[in-house]
Amino acid sequence: MIDFTIQNQKLDQVPVLLKRYGIELWLTLGAETSMKPEPVLDFILGLEMTWLSAFILTARNERIAIVGRFDAENVRRMGDYNEIIPYDQDFFPLLLQVLERLDPASIALNYSEHDVSADGLSHGTWLKLKKGLAGTSYAERLLSSEDVVRTLRGQKTPAEVERIRTAAHTTEEIVAEIGRGIMLGMTEEGLYAMVQGLMSKRGVTPSWDPCPNISVGAASVAGHTLSDARFKVETSMLVHMDLGVRQNEYVSDMQRVWYVLRPGESKLPEEVKKAFEDVRGAILAAADVLKPGVEGWKLDQAARDTIVTAGYAEFQHAAGHSLGRAVHDGGNLLGPRWARYGQSPYHQVEAGNVFTLELGVPVPGFGFVGLEEDVLVREDGLEWLSYPQEQIFLIKG
Amino acid sequence: MIDFTIQNQKLDQVPVLLKRYGIELWLTLGAETSMKPEPVLDFILGLEMTWLSAFILTARNERIAIVGRFDAENVRRMGDYNEIIPYDQDFFPLLLQVLERLDPASIALNYSEHDVSADGLSHGTWLKLKKGLAGTSYAERLLSSEDVVRTLRGQKTPAEVERIRTAAHTTEEIVAEIGRGIMLGMTEEGLYAMVQGLMSKRGVTPSWDPCPNISVGAASVAGHTLSDARFKVETSMLVHMDLGVRQNEYVSDMQRVWYVLRPGESKLPEEVKKAFEDVRGAILAAADVLKPGVEGWKLDQAARDTIVTAGYAEFQHAAGHSLGRAVHDGGNLLGPRWARYGQSPYHQVEAGNVFTLELGVPVPGFGFVGLEEDVLVREDGLEWLSYPQEQIFLIKG
Repeated sequence: MIDFTIQNQKLDQVPVLLKRYGIELWLTLGAETSMKPEPVLDFILGLEMTWLSAFILTARNERIAIVGRFDAENVRRMGDYNEIIPYDQDFFPLLLQVLERLDPASIALNYSEHDVSADGLSHGTWLKLKKGLAGTSYAERLLSSEDVVRTLRGQKTPAEVERIRTAAHTTEEIVAEIGRGIMLGMTEEGLYAMVQGLMSKRGVTPSWDPCPNISVGAASVAGHTLSDARFKVETSMLVHMDLGVRQNEYVSDMQRVWYVLRPGESKLPEEVKKAFEDVRGAILAAADVLKPGVEGWKLDQAARDTIVTAGYAEFQHAAGHSLGRAVHDGGNLLGPRWARYGQSPYHQVEAGNVFTLELGVPVPGFGFVGLEEDVLVREDGLEWLSYPQEQIFLIKG
Repeated sequence: MIDFTIQNQKLDQVPVLLKRYGIELWLTLGAETSMKPEPVLDFILGLEMTWLSAFILTARNERIAIVGRFDAENVRRMGDYNEIIPYDQDFFPLLLQVLERLDPASIALNYSEHDVSADGLSHGTWLKLKKGLAGTSYAERLLSSEDVVRTLRGQKTPAEVERIRTAAHTTEEIVAEIGRGIMLGMTEEGLYAMVQGLMSKRGVTPSWDPCPNISVGAASVAGHTLSDARFKVETSMLVHMDLGVRQNEYVSDMQRVWYVLRPGESKLPEEVKKAFEDVRGAILAAADVLKPGVEGWKLDQAARDTIVTAGYAEFQHAAGHSLGRAVHDGGNLLGPRWARYGQSPYHQVEAGNVFTLELGVPVPGFGFVGLEEDVLVREDGLEWLSYPQEQIFLIKG
């Protein structure tokens, strides 16, 4: 009934990654996860838990769950844990028994100052754990699981790639329908409602909220912005959208741009055409550099140099981010080496990673030209999961 | 476009609660909240944030937001924050400036060992905050916001109550359709799919996942369990469901029970009838005690005494929990004074609280009889938000 294909595949990756980082035991804790999700549980469980629960995975591929009695039956049926310990009252004595039995030299926990996706442990749960382990030596064996989480999320399995590809294709169908639906006089709010309807018709939801982010004309602010009824589609204007869909739990994230022709106008104004080609050129420059082993910042640098050389200001964000179950899927960033991004641009790209490539420039008097594509890193180079936009879509005004 | 009615009403409650608990400043931190929600932000913001963000609320009703540049426009349009500080690079210097200006004697943060809904601060963010405040005296003024969060979530505003009432009514419509849809030979899986369809038809989603929890006959396990294809509807059997819907972001949570008559049978077997009346009696006993000022455990005690006196084993859970935006809405619990529940059964019930009242008993040879109702606490007593089930629904076998 529930499909655990993803969790089966991800759990098989875990022992390899634990060995790679020299971690003997990885402990994920969560409670009331429908209200407060622990992002790691999507990969190693695929179920919601009510009471405080522990999922223990080891480098020797032991898989142990300590869960409230009412949650135990679901974990049993899920089938991936070979030891399930249900409890009614006291959680920590059971956890201690397991730790004593396995006696791991290192215990990795999901906290991180650098990566939100590896920071699912709440501070209150940390305090409870410290009390639960008080007087034992386990309290000194705790460390961050951020390397494991980054690479586990990053190395997409075949089933994960297929889901992202499907989400990207659905987005392209929607983009084609948007092109037929853009009419003079429509407001950003009207466009937003139209896109929501196109998603809903296909049974998919927006990748984030509020999505799409729409910018109509030069006065509108491009960014993660609520749509605005003040900005209306007129001729000689760019319409820009940042949009994506969540389909079967995985997401796409793309930017597309349209131009509304004046009556009698048949081709793009020069400055709009140049902006599009420069943005596209910068994205292709980053794509050229993308292969296993390269550090993320080098892709950003390639895109950034191209656009600056073409005469534009630097963009104030990363040229790409991981994409998967989340829009910002944690871990590796294709970003500049700025303090804000910490270590995230320094990790090496690996085969199986999926990234966005994205940037844009304002065109004074017309609006915003921004592009964003979704790409898979393969051993032999890059595969486009979205069909890159090759020219601005023209709307008859 | 986005409706901020709930956030407007909740933010007006905040200064009163901060004064009540002697807290000068309440600091909520969150990042990538679509992946890792901070439950408090649903009440004080109603938007998703990408970069690390701070929402600062004070007893003097100052409302200050420090957010990434691309998130700032949305917070501006939301309209409830009178100072919005956008940033590109460094977050903590800006936070420090605000703290120095306001110089609060106490700074409440969302961590709690007792209440998941008040524990949205991740441990990694805590570590970053400690570094950001290092060398200042603010690091010693930190405390838990759990009292504020509990009462803020607990004191439902009129708009919140209306949404829960609507979700309960929708659930009752679905329950009526389920009664017409239960057929001999249907499996739990088939029933699950049917209920999912009935929710989807109305544009609502299940309150939790997997929901509904279905128990068909005596061999099936009642609890938070995946449906099972092995258990089929037969005559002389109880069908039990725990179900609820999320509608306009608020949820219902109810249990209902059906009995499948044998050919020629026109009324319930005695032991099934007795079980239903005893369960219903225990819920009414708890309802009798529910009024502002009473501690939660006293309701549990009333229900528990009633069912034990009637000759059943004690149920291994609380007789009720808070209900609202989440199914287990944190804070007050109508539970026994067991170690597992910590302080949560000792809080006083307040007007505006919404609870479930729930329990059930197995009937050997037939299945499970469980009931769950949703109730609002008013100054003058109790209001049923669900229509309490008065007799077992009969299905013609």
